[in-house]
Amino acid sequence: MYFIIVYDVGVKRVNKVKKFLRKYLNWIQNSVFEGNLTKSELKEVKQGIKKIINQSHDSIIIYKLRNKKALEKTTIGQEKEKTDNII
Amino acid sequence: MYFIIVYDVGVKRVNKVKKFLRKYLNWIQNSVFEGNLTKSELKEVKQGIKKIINQSHDSIIIYKLRNKKALEKTTIGQEKEKTDNII
Repeated sequence: MYFIIVYDVGVKRVNKVKKFLRKYLNWIQNSVFEGNLTKSELKEVKQGIKKIINQSHDSIIIYKLRNKKALEKTTIGQEKEKTDNII
Repeated sequence: MYFIIVYDVGVKRVNKVKKFLRKYLNWIQNSVFEGNLTKSELKEVKQGIKKIINQSHDSIIIYKLRNKKALEKTTIGQEKEKTDNII
């Protein structure tokens, strides 16, 4: 299954969420990750996120798609994931 | 067609992008919009965004899906679009 995860979290928690999600998915741009997850990885991601965020302030959205082909992606401006991998 | 638009733009341009996209789509959380667009609306959105952003710094990603059913959405924490509509 293919996933897009977006998050809107408190400044103090942004890096923690980013560092955690990097273990499972590809960083695309600030607050956006993409990639494939197995059922067990998805469970780990959900559990891990719940430990990091403040659920009464923060918001994480997990979009699940049958596969990457269900998605057409257009970027306007910079493709930040490319520059990020160089740094 | 159903769309998710995410953006990572300079602080000076965030509100302009948000204000512009609000005319076409639903604000979901910071830097995330969703909704249906016709072909001509999509063209307007792309053209409008190109006028607002700095393409050598900013990044806008447009995810296109055949329809909303192709997408399963889970929110952890706050559903910000609900609180936003009240304000």
